[in-house]
Amino acid sequence: MTSTDAHPMWLPDAAFRPLGRRRVLVAAAPEDGPVAATVVDEVAAATAQFGGSVTTTTPDEPLTADEALTHEVVLAVVGSAGQVGTASARLAPPPGTVPRTDAYLPAVQATLDGALVLGRGAPWNPGMFTTVRRGGRTVVAAADAAGLLHGLHDLVRRGESAFTGPDDVSVDLPVNGIRMLDHWDNVDVHPVMGQVERGYSGGSIFYADGRVREDLSRVAAYARLLGSVGINAVAINNVNVARTEARLLTDGLPDVARIAALFRPHGIRVHLSVSFAAPMTVGGLPTSDPLDPDVQAWWAARVADVYAVVPDFGGFVVKADSEGQPGPFAYGRDQADGANLLARALKPFGGTVFWRAFVYDHKQDWRDRSTDRARAAFDHFSPLDGRFDDNVVLQVKYGPMDFQTREPVSPVIAAMPRTRLALELQVTQEYTGQQKHAVWLGPQWSQILGFPLWGEGGRTVADVAAGLCGPTDAPRAGLVAVSNVGDDAFWTGHPLAQANLYTFARLAWSPEIDPVAVLDEWIGLTFPDADDDVRATLHGILDDSWRTYEDYTAPLGVGFMVRPGHHYGPDVDGYEYTPWGTYHFADRDGIGVDRTRATGTGFTGQYPAPWRDVYEDVATCPDELLLFFHHVPWSHGLRSGVCVAQHVYDTHWEGAARTERNAEAWAAVAGKVPADLHARVTERLAEQVRSAHEWRDQLRTYVHRHSGLPDATGRTLY
Amino acid sequence: MTSTDAHPMWLPDAAFRPLGRRRVLVAAAPEDGPVAATVVDEVAAATAQFGGSVTTTTPDEPLTADEALTHEVVLAVVGSAGQVGTASARLAPPPGTVPRTDAYLPAVQATLDGALVLGRGAPWNPGMFTTVRRGGRTVVAAADAAGLLHGLHDLVRRGESAFTGPDDVSVDLPVNGIRMLDHWDNVDVHPVMGQVERGYSGGSIFYADGRVREDLSRVAAYARLLGSVGINAVAINNVNVARTEARLLTDGLPDVARIAALFRPHGIRVHLSVSFAAPMTVGGLPTSDPLDPDVQAWWAARVADVYAVVPDFGGFVVKADSEGQPGPFAYGRDQADGANLLARALKPFGGTVFWRAFVYDHKQDWRDRSTDRARAAFDHFSPLDGRFDDNVVLQVKYGPMDFQTREPVSPVIAAMPRTRLALELQVTQEYTGQQKHAVWLGPQWSQILGFPLWGEGGRTVADVAAGLCGPTDAPRAGLVAVSNVGDDAFWTGHPLAQANLYTFARLAWSPEIDPVAVLDEWIGLTFPDADDDVRATLHGILDDSWRTYEDYTAPLGVGFMVRPGHHYGPDVDGYEYTPWGTYHFADRDGIGVDRTRATGTGFTGQYPAPWRDVYEDVATCPDELLLFFHHVPWSHGLRSGVCVAQHVYDTHWEGAARTERNAEAWAAVAGKVPADLHARVTERLAEQVRSAHEWRDQLRTYVHRHSGLPDATGRTLY
Repeated sequence: MTSTDAHPMWLPDAAFRPLGRRRVLVAAAPEDGPVAATVVDEVAAATAQFGGSVTTTTPDEPLTADEALTHEVVLAVVGSAGQVGTASARLAPPPGTVPRTDAYLPAVQATLDGALVLGRGAPWNPGMFTTVRRGGRTVVAAADAAGLLHGLHDLVRRGESAFTGPDDVSVDLPVNGIRMLDHWDNVDVHPVMGQVERGYSGGSIFYADGRVREDLSRVAAYARLLGSVGINAVAINNVNVARTEARLLTDGLPDVARIAALFRPHGIRVHLSVSFAAPMTVGGLPTSDPLDPDVQAWWAARVADVYAVVPDFGGFVVKADSEGQPGPFAYGRDQADGANLLARALKPFGGTVFWRAFVYDHKQDWRDRSTDRARAAFDHFSPLDGRFDDNVVLQVKYGPMDFQTREPVSPVIAAMPRTRLALELQVTQEYTGQQKHAVWLGPQWSQILGFPLWGEGGRTVADVAAGLCGPTDAPRAGLVAVSNVGDDAFWTGHPLAQANLYTFARLAWSPEIDPVAVLDEWIGLTFPDADDDVRATLHGILDDSWRTYEDYTAPLGVGFMVRPGHHYGPDVDGYEYTPWGTYHFADRDGIGVDRTRATGTGFTGQYPAPWRDVYEDVATCPDELLLFFHHVPWSHGLRSGVCVAQHVYDTHWEGAARTERNAEAWAAVAGKVPADLHARVTERLAEQVRSAHEWRDQLRTYVHRHSGLPDATGRTLY
Repeated sequence: MTSTDAHPMWLPDAAFRPLGRRRVLVAAAPEDGPVAATVVDEVAAATAQFGGSVTTTTPDEPLTADEALTHEVVLAVVGSAGQVGTASARLAPPPGTVPRTDAYLPAVQATLDGALVLGRGAPWNPGMFTTVRRGGRTVVAAADAAGLLHGLHDLVRRGESAFTGPDDVSVDLPVNGIRMLDHWDNVDVHPVMGQVERGYSGGSIFYADGRVREDLSRVAAYARLLGSVGINAVAINNVNVARTEARLLTDGLPDVARIAALFRPHGIRVHLSVSFAAPMTVGGLPTSDPLDPDVQAWWAARVADVYAVVPDFGGFVVKADSEGQPGPFAYGRDQADGANLLARALKPFGGTVFWRAFVYDHKQDWRDRSTDRARAAFDHFSPLDGRFDDNVVLQVKYGPMDFQTREPVSPVIAAMPRTRLALELQVTQEYTGQQKHAVWLGPQWSQILGFPLWGEGGRTVADVAAGLCGPTDAPRAGLVAVSNVGDDAFWTGHPLAQANLYTFARLAWSPEIDPVAVLDEWIGLTFPDADDDVRATLHGILDDSWRTYEDYTAPLGVGFMVRPGHHYGPDVDGYEYTPWGTYHFADRDGIGVDRTRATGTGFTGQYPAPWRDVYEDVATCPDELLLFFHHVPWSHGLRSGVCVAQHVYDTHWEGAARTERNAEAWAAVAGKVPADLHARVTERLAEQVRSAHEWRDQLRTYVHRHSGLPDATGRTLY
């Protein structure tokens, strides 16, 4: 329960009250590592504040069973199945004798049994924990300290009900091995992109004035927050790696070590984004060719340097051959050659390469309708399936374009069964309101994760990311997202955008959980004093906010109608004549991109059945993706019963109206939430109302000026 | 003939050869002031280099007539009509005795006679000079040192013919009293606008690293160039005055004095742009109300401070109540109250206020077609005619909008006969190719200056600026332009953009001269070794370049189809839904702004007859302004015989093609001009070709997508 100068996100002290007023035994000594020490510290702070007590075991003072049984709550590291860990050795009979007596710390036994109920014969998943409530005693047992930390926070989330419910046994474990946040923070302020690229929350918590901050207390608080929701990896610098940032790998290592030391107690490994050209720009070599022995030796030496100061370093994130970043193409090598170069340097130390699949031609000719940016990632990467080393994770954006409000899922996700694929989401709201609009993305992510890649009932995007797809189970990977925090007093600019960070982390742990339940968790943890009215208001604003945003912005999956550069606010033709490959081709007759095999770019052919056919046929293509796949007349009738033009007229009117109702609802809970937070949200909702009406009027006017069609309801068009 | 590290503009040493190889007498001692010393220095340097000789008079050593007559060239300050000046006293009989003997220095007498041929009984105009060629001797006489400097440079421009032609007497004088360049240079780099706002020539020659440069040698070279073409005023900082810039008036005075000292020897007075809020932001007062005595006293004290260190300080430039700059409206005062506040502080010292008329609502609602930005300056200022003090100059942009490639002239120019009006032009090519495109603006400016405000044959824009209009002659003012120089090696980014600076200065001196003759002068002075081929190529590229640029950019006077913010390159709808008041209202049926009295904004009514009626009627409105004044169908037939859509198809195709021909022509003169200059121009022409084709294809496509009309010639549309 560290305090910071910033307004806390979730985890206010009050959330620890149910635990903190009880007698707690923590069987996880500092010798179990820094994460175990964190658990001890959290419990000690909570019990000190709320009147409970904590006992910790140490190797020198083993507890008797009687002593253990005097505690109401037991948190124990008990080792993985078949083995007895350090802490459990102090609770149990001598090593080698697995405790079996139900009377003797029954929960520990139940935990070990719990490990078996996974049913897949898998070893304990790192981070897994079992919770047993029996006879008024609550026991959390885990095989490692990280699991114990997650179990502790699970108790906190559950609140009083964790301790007072009926007898129960549950097992929880992260579905994804990788639960990662990427930071697009620059060390030097970029002349165009600023301190944090696509950051809408002030400056960077890591960097200021061209260097790593001396005061990293915000990073420490951030690490605790992330650890509490199961994040286990962060990349601390922008994937667009400039000169200063490239030197984090060399001159900057002492600072990287300082940052890693703050994440380590929360079970989070630090990663660096690196430039593929670093052997030249940093190392002074004449080439960065991945097949050059000197280049390979240079990377091996750099990696050894990193691990010498950060023994649990996670690895590298690489944006190569993308939007001007260097890559293996310069040497006639492919993306697998590039990724494996780094993977082999990291391999001896247990590190991972996150290689982004975001490779496309960003200098496209808008006149050329045969080139389709949506095709690019599949065309580049799917032929390389099986070529990547096992410590390479291919990081794939959820859609084929770029984090739009609505896209189909990327066909790459279904195309590489022999590759570890991580799904990349964007918590920072680049294209979804930039934390000026209240847009909670839980439903979008949940829909993406649940998308059945091979048809209804089949395996999903979440299954691929978790490694549960293909002819045989692929190696596990997970979820990655671009973070949305900065040094803003509310962490995320818009206070309600904290819900996106929370929801991402919880979905990375359990992709199948209902996002609205996650939102409810977040509300409970963030506003512990909220009454039903506040809860209902927050749900009212956020539950459908993604759909509301879609309603008043780019319609029917067409995407990109934003101001070039900063990507905020409407500019219907803003990208229409640019090199970025992001067009809608509207004219007086119609709108949309023909991506069919029959008459268009053939992109539909990158999907497996049934989607290749569902999307191909304008009659079966879902309304919300119609303009992504088809160019249709303004008068084209949607399944919803109205034509495209009227759809724009209607949805934009209604979406904008909903933002007004949200602002009114929020005004009504003044006094029920902290005043400064209420004021900030009020200000943001007002901007959302203004912006939504601008979107509304511009889109409606644009469609009317092109189509000539009236709004059937007679509402004003300009 | 100073040298600098930068490539010279006009005035290379070779231009001084015809003068420098002769015996020259300069009757202008340093006692005549720093400008006289400049004349002496220029002649001495030229004769030293080219084998001639120079004799200068001094008060202690008066020349006899015989001595004077031994020189081939005489440059003399002779005092104004009816008076005998310092230098002439040394050449002539005792003061009071006007020389009358034709044998005794006849040219001086001819000069005095020349003063009378002006025919208006006016006193000698500052800067006026007379040139007499008689019996193989060339005499330049002037009433002041500035006149002698201009006479010297007139000789340099004329070259050998100045000394070898038949006997002749000519009088030259600047038509405009004010011939000024405004610099939009920032002391601190502005986060969006950079070091020089709308600067396309590198950094500022005045400022770097947040302060005035230590090394001002480029400023000294610039002052010499400007002095050689008659510029007599500069404003050294941006009209958008930020925090640091506001302190030039206080802490920065020693630096302002250093800069003024470099301009002074060339007859140029330095001005500062000031913030109307300076009494508050700099002075710490609670108000900037122009009627507040403390505010008035504050300005009086600041002005006294300035004149204490810069005795010939020119005055202030003010952008008030415009695009976010503070102004008198905040206190319920009008623009005259604001201007007169500063004028009265400056009055005792002979200073002038340049008050910009660029006042409009920059937060307009694009939905509101009744508000018309074009009306704003007239609506704000015309009621104030007669209210401005006589040391206020109202600085009016040439058109009602903002330096577009094609606009009608501002109706303000015809509306304020009792006000000193300066015409504001833009040498820096903000909307005309940003010194990436070769666009010589001489013809545009010449056309504006010659526009007959009250109908053919009547007084012109130039007449108003010069003070020759209205029921009685108004007080004189002149021409002001935004400069285009920076610390670029070629001074202006595009080397050929130097011609714009030169042409502006020459038109400020003589608005009626043929701009193509001015261009020819510039070519001769800049490329003294150019053969006929180079001359013809430069004329071929530049003579029609304004029209070429118009052809491939926004058509028929509609303006603004540029990328918002930086204003480079096409974005047809870029400003269509913004608050800037710059719309074209294109839809599937037509395009243009209805500014008629009959059905539109009524802007046509701001013009006097005949223009109020010529512009009102679509049948008489000139083609090139059609869309400025009228909204017409795409199929509307132009006087040229084609419809609007086909006009766009044709002009854009042909304009872009002309840029290709220009690039080819320039390639053919490689080796005939300096290699580095050839390379720079080649690079710029290539960019112009690329950009012109982008304009071509986007405009043609936009019109086709909206109108549905085919290109009658069958050329590709996208």
